[in-house]
Amino acid sequence: MLDLLKSRYETPIPVGVSNRHVHLCQADWDFLFGPGAEPRRFRSVKQPGFWACYETVTLKGPKGTIENVRLIAPHRKKTQVEIAKTDASQLGLRPPVRGSGDLGGSSPIRIIGPKGMLEVKEGLVIASRHIHFSPPEAEAMGIKEGEIVRVRAGIGGPRELVYSNVLCRISNDYSLEFHIDTDEANAAEVKTGDHVYIEK
Amino acid sequence: MLDLLKSRYETPIPVGVSNRHVHLCQADWDFLFGPGAEPRRFRSVKQPGFWACYETVTLKGPKGTIENVRLIAPHRKKTQVEIAKTDASQLGLRPPVRGSGDLGGSSPIRIIGPKGMLEVKEGLVIASRHIHFSPPEAEAMGIKEGEIVRVRAGIGGPRELVYSNVLCRISNDYSLEFHIDTDEANAAEVKTGDHVYIEK
Repeated sequence: MLDLLKSRYETPIPVGVSNRHVHLCQADWDFLFGPGAEPRRFRSVKQPGFWACYETVTLKGPKGTIENVRLIAPHRKKTQVEIAKTDASQLGLRPPVRGSGDLGGSSPIRIIGPKGMLEVKEGLVIASRHIHFSPPEAEAMGIKEGEIVRVRAGIGGPRELVYSNVLCRISNDYSLEFHIDTDEANAAEVKTGDHVYIEK
Repeated sequence: MLDLLKSRYETPIPVGVSNRHVHLCQADWDFLFGPGAEPRRFRSVKQPGFWACYETVTLKGPKGTIENVRLIAPHRKKTQVEIAKTDASQLGLRPPVRGSGDLGGSSPIRIIGPKGMLEVKEGLVIASRHIHFSPPEAEAMGIKEGEIVRVRAGIGGPRELVYSNVLCRISNDYSLEFHIDTDEANAAEVKTGDHVYIEK
């Protein structure tokens, strides 16, 4: 139990970098892949119960397209596309920075699958950075649900930085991990599995 | 002269975001575009004396290619290719984070122009972030050449952060500007012309 004696500032938090990905609702899956088709498991992802699919789609915006964007299954109630701002610039779109599921007023996006092209009215977001904690991890580190902290990354490297506005989320489904997108990871030169620390 | 009374921490510093770009040496230009060809001015860039060319090249790595990469003229003594880490991932390369001109041990890169493909043995880097100051600006802000500072960006926005390891460069050719690449800009949601501040 020595770990419990560590303060929140001394506990190494593993990084999980999210590449661009798509969650489809059942109706949008059926439209893009055909009714009766089923997504096939490609590999696990860190979120318990979810997995990356063999199936990919193409995203289309006014300025460009991005191919081979991975689907995450099982399907969700609402289609949600999470990209980095670099991707958004390539597509020519300006999605807002949002927490998962907070899609009101998010950007429209065209999604192309083997059976056709779908026009999604809203659902394109840039994910806001956050830390996942299990309840025991949060308790040991003195973290409350919804707390905002600062996180130091890339310590000792050429691109060390401190992220502000990092949201803490606590759930039995979670284990300790700091979630950022590829732009945020690249700005600090960190990758999945590296460790970061909460900053005083 | 009221501005001179502002401390380094109170002076707004404009951001300049560098997109990926290529500086060629004369021999490499001749190889890619043909002897006797001359680069044509597309638009000015912030660095005095330099300009972006109409001419572009394609970068090729083991995993992918990036087209329409802008050339900067006039030519340099040594070919230097500056990309973001997101670009490096797309190419399948791992260039180091370096200051301009510091190319020893940097990555190899293939450059394709209208006359052929060039294999550059070293010259691919990710630019290290820095601030340019004129001598009077540096004096007013109490900045010494080579000083390392921290810079706060995206203040009040969803992606506010503090960059560590920011190098201060002073020259008569410079005017006050904080130079970062697209990954770093996107991680903070800042763009060219936004203002940042030196952090205590």
